[in-house]
Amino acid sequence: MADHLSAVLDALDQSQDEALERLFELLRIKSISTDPAYKDECAAAAEWCARTLREIGFEASIRPTTGHPMVVGRSHREVPKGMPHVLFYGHYDVQPPDPLDLWTSPPFEPQLAEDPRNGTVIVARGAEDNKGQLMTFLEAARAWKQVAGELPVAVTVLLEGEEECGSPSLPQFLEKHAQEITCDVALVCDTTQWDKDTPGITTMLRGLAGGEVIVTGPNRDLHSGLYGGPAINPIRVLARMLAALHDDDGRVTVPGFYDGVAEVPSSQAEQWRRLGFDEKAFLGEVGLSVPAGEKGYTALEQLWARPTCELNGITGGYQGPGTKTVIPSRASAKITCRLVTGQDPEKITANLQKFLAERVPPDCTVEFTPAHGNAAISFDPDAPLVQAAAQALEDEWGRPAVLMGSGASIPIVTAFKTHLGMDSLLIGFGTDDDCIHSPNEKYNLTSFRKGTRSWARILQRLASV
Amino acid sequence: MADHLSAVLDALDQSQDEALERLFELLRIKSISTDPAYKDECAAAAEWCARTLREIGFEASIRPTTGHPMVVGRSHREVPKGMPHVLFYGHYDVQPPDPLDLWTSPPFEPQLAEDPRNGTVIVARGAEDNKGQLMTFLEAARAWKQVAGELPVAVTVLLEGEEECGSPSLPQFLEKHAQEITCDVALVCDTTQWDKDTPGITTMLRGLAGGEVIVTGPNRDLHSGLYGGPAINPIRVLARMLAALHDDDGRVTVPGFYDGVAEVPSSQAEQWRRLGFDEKAFLGEVGLSVPAGEKGYTALEQLWARPTCELNGITGGYQGPGTKTVIPSRASAKITCRLVTGQDPEKITANLQKFLAERVPPDCTVEFTPAHGNAAISFDPDAPLVQAAAQALEDEWGRPAVLMGSGASIPIVTAFKTHLGMDSLLIGFGTDDDCIHSPNEKYNLTSFRKGTRSWARILQRLASV
Repeated sequence: MADHLSAVLDALDQSQDEALERLFELLRIKSISTDPAYKDECAAAAEWCARTLREIGFEASIRPTTGHPMVVGRSHREVPKGMPHVLFYGHYDVQPPDPLDLWTSPPFEPQLAEDPRNGTVIVARGAEDNKGQLMTFLEAARAWKQVAGELPVAVTVLLEGEEECGSPSLPQFLEKHAQEITCDVALVCDTTQWDKDTPGITTMLRGLAGGEVIVTGPNRDLHSGLYGGPAINPIRVLARMLAALHDDDGRVTVPGFYDGVAEVPSSQAEQWRRLGFDEKAFLGEVGLSVPAGEKGYTALEQLWARPTCELNGITGGYQGPGTKTVIPSRASAKITCRLVTGQDPEKITANLQKFLAERVPPDCTVEFTPAHGNAAISFDPDAPLVQAAAQALEDEWGRPAVLMGSGASIPIVTAFKTHLGMDSLLIGFGTDDDCIHSPNEKYNLTSFRKGTRSWARILQRLASV
Repeated sequence: MADHLSAVLDALDQSQDEALERLFELLRIKSISTDPAYKDECAAAAEWCARTLREIGFEASIRPTTGHPMVVGRSHREVPKGMPHVLFYGHYDVQPPDPLDLWTSPPFEPQLAEDPRNGTVIVARGAEDNKGQLMTFLEAARAWKQVAGELPVAVTVLLEGEEECGSPSLPQFLEKHAQEITCDVALVCDTTQWDKDTPGITTMLRGLAGGEVIVTGPNRDLHSGLYGGPAINPIRVLARMLAALHDDDGRVTVPGFYDGVAEVPSSQAEQWRRLGFDEKAFLGEVGLSVPAGEKGYTALEQLWARPTCELNGITGGYQGPGTKTVIPSRASAKITCRLVTGQDPEKITANLQKFLAERVPPDCTVEFTPAHGNAAISFDPDAPLVQAAAQALEDEWGRPAVLMGSGASIPIVTAFKTHLGMDSLLIGFGTDDDCIHSPNEKYNLTSFRKGTRSWARILQRLASV
């Protein structure tokens, strides 16, 4: 198969416009999984993916779940004896695009734009996370099929539609289809590179736990003149609860929160220092200058090796223009904790819930709805599959791939490990300034083009591990 | 004129259905002053009021302002020598109706409903505040005109359209039209009775100060995995600011907040105790049981004699269904303080702004937009006009009128005193359970009917003071 590689790369270079148009088609579908109003759009995105897989030459089917469907595709009906078999995982769902008024172009009308630092970029919700990234793999597979008639390794593709809302249907699906889904390794394209010119493989991921807290006081909204003073104000109660979550050094105060959390080993800390992470540039990019996490840790340590407790949303009372002198009946906040190795998501959630419940004054009630959690995870950076992929990346980018941590959580990676005993290779082509989950999400055109070429090379390298 | 009173009361009793239909017409107009989207509806409400005044027999005109217009009506072109001249003030604007999903019937489709405690009630936004209340006066005026051909006193009517958004145009209007508007006393119908069967005259009102605070951190919304830890979270910053506004005893911690605030004189405290205010029932009605204001004060003292600092609204980050792992760029809160005699609204606002600004950590900015403020006010309960009105109320309700305080603010009353040197008689027929500013606002049909009869009597009594 090695003979085919340069022809595959040429084919990718020659079909760039068609590849981009295919990505734009997918980006136009408003597959916002967390909002039930977009159920049909999620189904449409799944249909589109299945159709595309069949067009490439895969067998593909849509698998209903209690939520949004899974799409499963297979390059080989029977995997030839001795041929490696990899699972490619991606997700076709996206985050909500709000706040809409901050987008410079409509989030579901993909466009090319010029960016002073990154050159041409693709702008749309999902341009990077995860539609752009998953299409790098599908385009590589398409070129291999077209040029060589088959892929160098057997590939099963699993595309999920609930990644952005905690993957509620996933555990049951993996359990039911364990045999079909379990491969030698999973390829997961949902991460960033080290920087825009340097590839990376992520070997550490943080986990996630949390939920929504609702504080209710009076049984209805009250006039702040006629009741202000004697009537408890739920926003005030909620603010006091949330303010108590951190101490003045940025440490989370929930009892037991740091149970099982190890300090960064000095050898690893030293290795990370050598990466020359530009803290000032990283924060400066988003308008900040001082690492705001736990005192005594570098920004990279705060990001890769330390847990957090974040307030993702808060709401209560009047939020329109002008003044409304109301004491609201309720106020609520969405909280998520990023976890590191050693923390148990269920214990963290229970402790958080208890911490909040203990701070409810008389006449108020607190409801807590836990979100789906998952533990942190890490892989051996010296494993042969990791090294083979790293070499393929170096071949494409002309620089060694950095073996990185990530502050984000990818529940599927934990699920593959815990349910199927399968490791993952986390390779993505995003950059830190892609604005994923934010207005004006983009994907560098270079990420998309060199990403497809990278996968073409990785598939070939994996064939000989 | 005394001879006409019983005929006037009879006329009111006989025209109840028409009076109710007139009120319903006004209630159908969505005159939400704080939201610019309803500018035309506010204008329509002003038109309706002017037309109604003319129909009754008043001269009436619409006076444009930079905001919503004023309506001015006059019963006499020239006030006969020696005839008392009163100003009636009301407002045709209403609060926003949200949260809409908590209304049992559409807020701008007035209906009669049966209420186990209050009998028949009128349900709509503005049913009490202030459309129902102002119509009690206009119906009384209509009956006097119809039966006696003229009113027992000269009446100028001033109907405002910005009461619910801080009356920004009022000071200039009063200054410009001081001569036209200044009368012997203002009648203001924007308060409650002591209870549903006992009339009241309010002689103390709290003032108002405050504004909106916006905390900005990162220059855009961030992914909580990719930035969580090093990136400051504005919701966390805001929660800490707001939590610091009160100590554990419910006292406001803003420096200088209590400057000039006198303790309740023991004689007054004793008088209030004798009123037999049912704290349990007052709080129980809204699902509460413990006075949540400053420790050491009764609920009535917290309401009438102590200042507050309330959080009327808070917003930031993702607020839709499900989870969004975002660190928002900004978070904001609306704050209003209820003031008592001795507090200067401008100083309070400046101190609040300073208090918040001092709590901004590095990399965050805080903006503060002050809201229009006004000082607290009180009147002599022994004044002859107050006593005459109290007698008229007792004639109608069969019980002595209670001379009350109120926790609410009525900026117009302060403006009449400071700009025109005119005292006000605060007489209203609302009850504490009217849900003004809340979903399912109502006005007891008894309040409306006996309210019109009460004004008919008051007008006659005022003629002989």
